[in-house]
Amino acid sequence: MSVPATTVTPPLADDLDIVIPTIRNLDFLEQWRSFFQPYHLIIVQDGDPSKTIRVPDGFDYELYNRNDINRILGTKASCISFKDSACRCFGFLVSKKKYIFTIDDDCFVAKDPSGQEINALAQHIHNLLTPSTPYFFNTLYDPYREGADFVRGYPFSLREGVTTAISHGLWLNIPDYDAPTQLVKPLERNSRYVDAVLTIPKGTLFPMCGMNLGFHRELIGPAMYFGLMGDGQPIGRYDDMWAGWCAKVICDHLGLGVKTGLPYIWHSKASNPFVNLKKEYKGIYWQEEIIPFFQSVILPKDCTTPQKCYVELAKLVKEKLGPIDPYFGKLSGEMVTWVNAWNELNPSTDVAAVKNIDAAAPKKK
Amino acid sequence: MSVPATTVTPPLADDLDIVIPTIRNLDFLEQWRSFFQPYHLIIVQDGDPSKTIRVPDGFDYELYNRNDINRILGTKASCISFKDSACRCFGFLVSKKKYIFTIDDDCFVAKDPSGQEINALAQHIHNLLTPSTPYFFNTLYDPYREGADFVRGYPFSLREGVTTAISHGLWLNIPDYDAPTQLVKPLERNSRYVDAVLTIPKGTLFPMCGMNLGFHRELIGPAMYFGLMGDGQPIGRYDDMWAGWCAKVICDHLGLGVKTGLPYIWHSKASNPFVNLKKEYKGIYWQEEIIPFFQSVILPKDCTTPQKCYVELAKLVKEKLGPIDPYFGKLSGEMVTWVNAWNELNPSTDVAAVKNIDAAAPKKK
Repeated sequence: MSVPATTVTPPLADDLDIVIPTIRNLDFLEQWRSFFQPYHLIIVQDGDPSKTIRVPDGFDYELYNRNDINRILGTKASCISFKDSACRCFGFLVSKKKYIFTIDDDCFVAKDPSGQEINALAQHIHNLLTPSTPYFFNTLYDPYREGADFVRGYPFSLREGVTTAISHGLWLNIPDYDAPTQLVKPLERNSRYVDAVLTIPKGTLFPMCGMNLGFHRELIGPAMYFGLMGDGQPIGRYDDMWAGWCAKVICDHLGLGVKTGLPYIWHSKASNPFVNLKKEYKGIYWQEEIIPFFQSVILPKDCTTPQKCYVELAKLVKEKLGPIDPYFGKLSGEMVTWVNAWNELNPSTDVAAVKNIDAAAPKKK
Repeated sequence: MSVPATTVTPPLADDLDIVIPTIRNLDFLEQWRSFFQPYHLIIVQDGDPSKTIRVPDGFDYELYNRNDINRILGTKASCISFKDSACRCFGFLVSKKKYIFTIDDDCFVAKDPSGQEINALAQHIHNLLTPSTPYFFNTLYDPYREGADFVRGYPFSLREGVTTAISHGLWLNIPDYDAPTQLVKPLERNSRYVDAVLTIPKGTLFPMCGMNLGFHRELIGPAMYFGLMGDGQPIGRYDDMWAGWCAKVICDHLGLGVKTGLPYIWHSKASNPFVNLKKEYKGIYWQEEIIPFFQSVILPKDCTTPQKCYVELAKLVKEKLGPIDPYFGKLSGEMVTWVNAWNELNPSTDVAAVKNIDAAAPKKK
């Protein structure tokens, strides 16, 4: 008997958009062609809208420049940053898919220690489609991975895990350092391939980098706002951090999981540390108050959607961080604008009840 | 000029004891000779005290059997388990050193992916002598490791870290699975070498395995009680888990760090899953209540030493877990006996103020 010919469909090809913020021709896509070509791309062009961005042939994409953003969002376009990669979140807003993968245009295909090219997107999809374990740490890392499991002493009632909302990937070559560390260690390169994916426990914050990131847009998209950065703002390079702190607090509240680790991409080029220092310096001291704020945030139980959580968080930002600088009052306002824009472009998602909320708190005595 | 001849002293040779619980001749030490020989061994002989345990020549050791334990502790010997590896904690009690490394006699030298033999003890010492970062997650894992650092967005005020109290190592070959998982996956072997050490965040519990474990005896030793297991007890194979849950809660309270990851040892032999099931089955359902108990424990601020914390924890165990089974009332009593034995054999350590306590809680708004 002959085996019938079948076509292997890439996973989630119809359910995932790849979002790329850029100011240049997207030649980097050539290296990713075999992995990305089956997927739809949303390109968010930053900077001068009259410039033409070249996209290699054969990719299925839509491209938005600043004029498009202003036209589509009208007055609400004020929430989308300009001249900063924070503009990428516009792509999350206009996507109609369940999942997002976002990548920077200076990120290339990395190789694992055996020399095999890493399909970063496939690993993110695997991370997103398998549960997370935020309530208890598994010492052999991801228990859902082939060849691994929960170790002795791991409560059986927690082994189903929770739905994964975020998959945070890492970087070989240029590590994601802040300007002071870049200045002190200009030659440091990350060559360590750590073969692990792990859940960031409930109640623990982490520095989320937007360079190589996957997430469940329906469950956490409204919290993936990259803030006000760049042109006209007093701060830059905290866009992804801001999104990460907000999203983690909301995932914890809604009983959703956040993973970090694999996949690695090859980060090709260190940004200029002097320019970065200028962008970062306010963030470097503001974060000393921002982190304790996020560590102490408690969202009301009736916040059962990411939208409701986000609006509540915006209120708290104004109240608790507003005294630091008028910037936070403005940011709080744009957080609300963002959610309104989200609901306008994604009607009816706000009522999509998140079922995990009751599971968010582990059973207490 | 000639370079003066120097002898390289192994790290902490005068400050660390290796504790080994056993019922058999310690031939496994031959493989560890080059790494362990400079250190003092404390061998805790379990089972029949009339049996002679052979220790390979050239090792510096003291050996205690049940008769010794009874003689040294008198009535307090009731807190030391018999016919269970939980007896290892007697070695922690009689040590006079600052650090402990404990290992099972079925653990051998593992190799890293390059084929190099892993000096597990040296890695534990490195883990213990470098700080931990329990208040914020670093996505590139141990920031104190060569070639790594804190990533962008990591608050600078937290980069000093805290003193590390526990270094939990892992196992290649036979993973540390419970009986049900052993039964379901009899052939599963751990061949994944994850090249990372990470801090288990504050507020997160983990399943601590006693097979390959280092700790700071002065700072956390009094909490490293391996409970009542084995002969005459309704439960086994939860000795290290119990110690881990107690120690983690106390480390969190005292502002001390717990690391897991490297080093790996080669775990040679799976224990019998049917025997294990008999030992574990009560633990498997009790832990469903034990974990939420430990997740909700709050120790009073005036508990500034591990002893004070441990006595307080014993009280809470009696009060909150006592209703599950009379076993927990008995365990609570022996937890207090253990601390009394500790203070008797280690006078004046209870007043050793832990300076980190005020740093334990991150600054709140």
